[in-house]
Amino acid sequence: MKKYKFLISYDGTDFEGWQRQLEGKPTVQGAIERAIAQICSEPIKVIGSGRTDSGVHAEGQVFHFKTDKELNRNFIKSMNSILPHSISVLNGWEAPDEFHAQISAISKTYRYLIHNSQVPNALRRRYTTWQRRELNIDNLNAICEPLIGTHDFKSFQTAGTGVKTSIRTITEAHWKLIGPELIEFRVTGTGFLKQMIRNIVGTAIHLHQIGHGPKEMSAILNELDRQAAKATAPPTGLYLHRVEYPSDLDNKCREL
Amino acid sequence: MKKYKFLISYDGTDFEGWQRQLEGKPTVQGAIERAIAQICSEPIKVIGSGRTDSGVHAEGQVFHFKTDKELNRNFIKSMNSILPHSISVLNGWEAPDEFHAQISAISKTYRYLIHNSQVPNALRRRYTTWQRRELNIDNLNAICEPLIGTHDFKSFQTAGTGVKTSIRTITEAHWKLIGPELIEFRVTGTGFLKQMIRNIVGTAIHLHQIGHGPKEMSAILNELDRQAAKATAPPTGLYLHRVEYPSDLDNKCREL
Repeated sequence: MKKYKFLISYDGTDFEGWQRQLEGKPTVQGAIERAIAQICSEPIKVIGSGRTDSGVHAEGQVFHFKTDKELNRNFIKSMNSILPHSISVLNGWEAPDEFHAQISAISKTYRYLIHNSQVPNALRRRYTTWQRRELNIDNLNAICEPLIGTHDFKSFQTAGTGVKTSIRTITEAHWKLIGPELIEFRVTGTGFLKQMIRNIVGTAIHLHQIGHGPKEMSAILNELDRQAAKATAPPTGLYLHRVEYPSDLDNKCREL
Repeated sequence: MKKYKFLISYDGTDFEGWQRQLEGKPTVQGAIERAIAQICSEPIKVIGSGRTDSGVHAEGQVFHFKTDKELNRNFIKSMNSILPHSISVLNGWEAPDEFHAQISAISKTYRYLIHNSQVPNALRRRYTTWQRRELNIDNLNAICEPLIGTHDFKSFQTAGTGVKTSIRTITEAHWKLIGPELIEFRVTGTGFLKQMIRNIVGTAIHLHQIGHGPKEMSAILNELDRQAAKATAPPTGLYLHRVEYPSDLDNKCREL
């Protein structure tokens, strides 16, 4: 058996998230497993670096699977011709046996894009969240400063997951103007709780708009209570941007 | 009667182009006229700066219409809440009576976006055309150089329009790398024939790929025959970017 690692992007709009579901709702994992089964003529289960929620996009999701088949670059071509246009295989590697898309991941980066304008823009509606009221980047950066570091993020965890601990480490949480009326919130961490980023974005914008600052963000963080945090931002603007693995594992991966 | 001018953007994917059709197919003009009729409680016909083909996007289409109603900024809000998310009203003006969205236009700029990569990317599929083989920007610029100026563009005109002359002036035809694996062709002119830009893009890429240059582009231009030009590029990558009007008319427009 050989292990293969793949890098994919997807437009989350029409999917009920990453994870395969029983009821036949469209999911990214489901579409990928069907495409692989068709090419390899065997049932395949793939393991992703983690779930993404319904409507969330990915610029760099990673998954792996094992097969007896020898795969080469043609496999990527075949996948892209079978998969719906809303999923693309960007690259593929033969991975060492110890590689695991979820367990080996050491950090993830997400981006949240906001179209900050008096009026919506049809060409951005699918890939950003529209925010009418003017946002101040410096203010938002100050508000999110207390989140950086290792904390119990229970206040930003939506219920319904069976994770053992809500302690996570955030190494980067940065707001930036990246285009005309286009704001990016980029956050990197060891892992994220359910809807954690959307809860952080919703809370940061809420605090900003009522004139509160980092002190109030710290207070919310310290309450360890989901009721303390504010609105959950919509999924439309959220992208799983990059999954990082230890360099020794990367070095053992051989590009197809 | 007052005249009003509006700037809109739209995602052309789900529309059969700008122009209202008899058979009830979804068109941008149709959707706009329905929304205005609902707000103004009267049947309204709008006049656009020109048609866009099925699937073509607009970052800055312009239209005007006349009404007895007094419109203000709330009209823009109402339009954006009634219109499908694939059309956005970006701004509106009260325009002088001599303004005409189509006749007053002195130039138009289109952009054509190409995702130039070995593999497709789901997040760009809706808004770019995917081109697998590597494109050379300098080469493409050289190939398109002969198009600049005033010429009879008959070779690049798709049949089926009743225009009097196929002579047009192109003031800018420029290829540029604007992001990772993202190429823009920007073209400005006094007006364009049916599918002219898609025919130019298709021909330029074809000539580039078979190793031909500006001499062959000149020859095609001089043949004055649609058979001389090559493939029509798909509409997915094309955007009506900007419509320009004389500054004295712009100065007489009052923002709502």
